[in-house]
Amino acid sequence: MGAPRLLAGDWGTTNLRAWTLDEAGIVIQAARFDGFGVSHLAREEAASRFESEMRPALGAEGLPALLCGMVGSTLGWAPAPYEDCPAGLADLAARLTRAPGAARVSVVPGLRWRGAEGRPDVMRGEETQILGWAAADPQRSRGKRLVCHPGTHTKWVLLEEGRIAAFATAMTGELFAVLRAHSVLAGSGGKDDPAAFDAGLEAAGDGGALAARLFGVRARVVGYGAAQDTSGDYLSGLLIGADAAATPALLGVSVEAVDIIGDARLCALYARALERRGARCEIHDGETAAVTGLWALHRSAS
Amino acid sequence: MGAPRLLAGDWGTTNLRAWTLDEAGIVIQAARFDGFGVSHLAREEAASRFESEMRPALGAEGLPALLCGMVGSTLGWAPAPYEDCPAGLADLAARLTRAPGAARVSVVPGLRWRGAEGRPDVMRGEETQILGWAAADPQRSRGKRLVCHPGTHTKWVLLEEGRIAAFATAMTGELFAVLRAHSVLAGSGGKDDPAAFDAGLEAAGDGGALAARLFGVRARVVGYGAAQDTSGDYLSGLLIGADAAATPALLGVSVEAVDIIGDARLCALYARALERRGARCEIHDGETAAVTGLWALHRSAS
Repeated sequence: MGAPRLLAGDWGTTNLRAWTLDEAGIVIQAARFDGFGVSHLAREEAASRFESEMRPALGAEGLPALLCGMVGSTLGWAPAPYEDCPAGLADLAARLTRAPGAARVSVVPGLRWRGAEGRPDVMRGEETQILGWAAADPQRSRGKRLVCHPGTHTKWVLLEEGRIAAFATAMTGELFAVLRAHSVLAGSGGKDDPAAFDAGLEAAGDGGALAARLFGVRARVVGYGAAQDTSGDYLSGLLIGADAAATPALLGVSVEAVDIIGDARLCALYARALERRGARCEIHDGETAAVTGLWALHRSAS
Repeated sequence: MGAPRLLAGDWGTTNLRAWTLDEAGIVIQAARFDGFGVSHLAREEAASRFESEMRPALGAEGLPALLCGMVGSTLGWAPAPYEDCPAGLADLAARLTRAPGAARVSVVPGLRWRGAEGRPDVMRGEETQILGWAAADPQRSRGKRLVCHPGTHTKWVLLEEGRIAAFATAMTGELFAVLRAHSVLAGSGGKDDPAAFDAGLEAAGDGGALAARLFGVRARVVGYGAAQDTSGDYLSGLLIGADAAATPALLGVSVEAVDIIGDARLCALYARALERRGARCEIHDGETAAVTGLWALHRSAS
């Protein structure tokens, strides 16, 4: 392990994960700053707090820094325009934005795409993870691949020859959170009940008529005697099942093999939904992918 | 206009609408009690407040009373079981529940149904309006008809020979309210912009992949420069368009002619969505239908 060469960061809505990397792109030190998300921090204080708190915590004074994620949104420190698809690492590296008020800090642009029917879509942060994952093995940059990045806003990405050709975002995680907190489905218990999750996957059908299928979460309890404390897992299965069944079709691809990148628990739930539909799935760590992507972008831009 | 014979009420989650009817079922007096919904009133106080406040306000002391709606749910005054489809007025009239703690007060049962694929569904209140609407004209009880009752939970009902054969509930109104108040789509302005509403209808496509299409409400603003204050109407069009495109298919019917019953403004929005898809629509008043239904149930049960 050598001397630190880069401060790499994935700066999202709720937190900042950051790493110092050596001259081979190997992680020297990692840190996670909770409560430092774009939604918590006033834009004007981002520069000073980055310099006075985050750099020292990682021993990264004076290092070049490269940041991806919502830090580049209009709510973040350094608004960076959206690039159009198709886009690969070289395209993004050519379009880094300098963050104002600090030295040697660059931000990765987001991506935008208009799908068939003109459906508009945007991405910030996941592109770095997904392209980083692809860059880690030359096999992954051959032909077409379907990648899923599950989360609050689940991203389905079509990679062609290592570039992001198209993508679709489903508000699956956010629908789950918002419906459980604020709708007639509020209080739907959750207790990690695989049978209830699978029943939700089954109820998702072809993923169509989602607004009607959602009402079934309540109807099965009040009309048909299902236990209320199974509703959370049933709702989770229904939303993830509908996402897996319907969203990839927006990209015009068949779902035979899917690489799933991100949080391990959430990836496993998506794999369960996809394998039920006949897809082969591989799960990959999102943090590793982010580091690889940021390092590759830094090298390409240097 | 004769002497009052029935106190009829549609007692929902947020308010109670009530009427006194004469011996021909004609409305003598109407009243609306806001803040008296099932969600506001403790179950234990329903009987005493009904007797001490609502009856006197309508000069309905001593009259038989018939109530439909959420008053018959487990949250309401008089839990009334769900009846299975198919069900018509005679079936419901044979299954009225007596409300505890008051004299001569009956409650209409709800309906439940398991659709194709086993999708569970329930209804309370709309059945009385829809069957009342059908009872008002013998033509409406011939053959199959598709009825739409838009609202917080939009009901799509298949009538066969004047009975409810099947139905599907879409959480369209609730999704609109919850997403605007609590999601990344929060603050989506609304200004009654028909062009934005129509753009939302267009973006609904075949109604599939709703979780992905919803994210487009945000992407069109942050990625493609649409005005933020068009988002509310666009979201409304997207949700209603997806509902109209996808939910009727759960009933296995083609959408050629639809009778829309309920609030006039909301009915007009659904008509716009349905006519765009080639359906002929007629709009009917929901309050009139409720009165007709309650009167018909009272006569059938007497």
